[in-house]
Amino acid sequence: MKTTLRPLVAALAAAAAFLALPAHAQGAQEPIQPIAPAVVKNPAMVELGKKLWFDPRLSKSGFISCNSCHNLSMGGSDNLKTSIGHNWQEGPINSPTVLNSSMNVAQFWDGRAGNLKEQAGGPIANPGEMAFTHELAVDMLNSIPGYQAEFKKVFSKQKIDIDQVTDAIAAFEETLVTPNSRFDKWLKGDANAITKTELEGYKLFRDSGCVACHNGAAVGGNSFQRMGLVEAYKTSNPAEGRAAVTGKDADRFNFKVPTLRNVELTYPYFHDGAADTLGQAVDTMGRVQLGKNFTKDENAKIVAFLKTLTGDQPQIGMPVLPPSSDATPRPTPFDKKK
Amino acid sequence: MKTTLRPLVAALAAAAAFLALPAHAQGAQEPIQPIAPAVVKNPAMVELGKKLWFDPRLSKSGFISCNSCHNLSMGGSDNLKTSIGHNWQEGPINSPTVLNSSMNVAQFWDGRAGNLKEQAGGPIANPGEMAFTHELAVDMLNSIPGYQAEFKKVFSKQKIDIDQVTDAIAAFEETLVTPNSRFDKWLKGDANAITKTELEGYKLFRDSGCVACHNGAAVGGNSFQRMGLVEAYKTSNPAEGRAAVTGKDADRFNFKVPTLRNVELTYPYFHDGAADTLGQAVDTMGRVQLGKNFTKDENAKIVAFLKTLTGDQPQIGMPVLPPSSDATPRPTPFDKKK
Repeated sequence: MKTTLRPLVAALAAAAAFLALPAHAQGAQEPIQPIAPAVVKNPAMVELGKKLWFDPRLSKSGFISCNSCHNLSMGGSDNLKTSIGHNWQEGPINSPTVLNSSMNVAQFWDGRAGNLKEQAGGPIANPGEMAFTHELAVDMLNSIPGYQAEFKKVFSKQKIDIDQVTDAIAAFEETLVTPNSRFDKWLKGDANAITKTELEGYKLFRDSGCVACHNGAAVGGNSFQRMGLVEAYKTSNPAEGRAAVTGKDADRFNFKVPTLRNVELTYPYFHDGAADTLGQAVDTMGRVQLGKNFTKDENAKIVAFLKTLTGDQPQIGMPVLPPSSDATPRPTPFDKKK
Repeated sequence: MKTTLRPLVAALAAAAAFLALPAHAQGAQEPIQPIAPAVVKNPAMVELGKKLWFDPRLSKSGFISCNSCHNLSMGGSDNLKTSIGHNWQEGPINSPTVLNSSMNVAQFWDGRAGNLKEQAGGPIANPGEMAFTHELAVDMLNSIPGYQAEFKKVFSKQKIDIDQVTDAIAAFEETLVTPNSRFDKWLKGDANAITKTELEGYKLFRDSGCVACHNGAAVGGNSFQRMGLVEAYKTSNPAEGRAAVTGKDADRFNFKVPTLRNVELTYPYFHDGAADTLGQAVDTMGRVQLGKNFTKDENAKIVAFLKTLTGDQPQIGMPVLPPSSDATPRPTPFDKKK
């Protein structure tokens, strides 16, 4: 009997192994693609952008840098419901991750910036964030010999201007991709890269319709969608979404679909930061976007899958910032009248 | 004539070269000693301490970390007159550099902490700084699987406690030394490591009496001295200095002498942060501590010397912080009543 069954057992094992492979390895197409490591085109510009990224002198207070709200130690986010801005102002919206943000169709939740360069100038001049002006930021940089030399090396111009600043920050941000997640390894054919539970979670995620919006290399980020498609999404957050940009009523509550890469690290979730945990986020998304009530078991499996999307985090050596000169205007964190 | 003068020229050149050497190379003793690179005794503890150093979850807001006010990109300081604390509170005193702080006789301007471990617990629980409590900080850490595992590996204990937290932070801080400054190279015998102007500045610094307080390996940090020894120091800052610790009237306005290592990076200066530039600081110190009015030329030379004290800045790879679990209490940056 042992001998007669052997071919059948082998065939079943082969079939099981085949089914554990990603769809594309079976001849079909997965709706999610792996991401590749960043290709650094201009290392000097990236290095300069990294300095600017970490430099709080780009804020009025001298205390807030890009990294304050998009912390590269914390998945490129601040892990707060909404961010803290100049003078401890409560931000209007959840700070999206900078990781893999170069893959986004546009920047900000409402897509009001077309690309990373355009986005980079926003927070510097936003009175609720860094509360500076482009003019003052550029004056500050032009007063610092270390920056003068480095900008000149990178841009070959006599004076620093805001275009160079946002170009350099965007060049740095473009390097912040997170390849080699376990799910990417599975997509590339390593059947053991994820567990059975995680695979079941992925199939639930795929077959329940989550991939309608969360697809592509970034598992999102490539479209605007209405928050509360099947059931109204209840929130006290007044953000209008895409309508604030287009002026069209049809775009109300349309937000950029966030990337789910590294979602384990970028809590809390949604534009209002209302979901503290992945379990809550999956439950809410199921109900308001898909009209599905995931069981506790299904929810846990989807969460397990989502955690396989954590990739290699960028290896960032902290820059040593060039010191201010005697001529550099000093930050003014505390207004006289407060 | 050329031939007869040659021995004299050679002798003069040798004498000049000899005089350019540091005193100890001439047989005498310099009042400043070079510093050695850090010896890492327990790499796992240092790595854990680095994570804690960068973790804003040790603050009530989830926004302020040790690095916020002792920024390792900015000479281990925040380059602000006084620091910004929880809810944008204006700090009472200038944030001292963490670089080479293990060499300090005690920690804080008034020396109220005997060592780095004792200091590390202070800001976490200070309502004007990180505004947390040790209990809440430890609860937070105990709720995070990544921290649980790492603390257990380092301390072999079942539960994380505040002693382990401050031990790890202090272990990290002990690595933050800055060897190989140009002045250290000169001290070790490289006569070309500093310029003629810088050497003249050092001689002015030494022979004017600055070294009475700014001496040793850290060029300060090893004693408490009265601010305003010869002439009263005028300030609106109410800090009392050492008297706040000892209760002795004789200790009023006695402050820990700050290290001058990396002083080029740690502006503004003094406990009240009143001196924006090194030139101002040298001028004030000359007058109030030594009764000397340095000329513009002397001042510039001393400033040039001080800039030779910038050493190799610590190479810090930003840590990836272990994510919060569902059970981790969320930060509360915004109080209901504000």
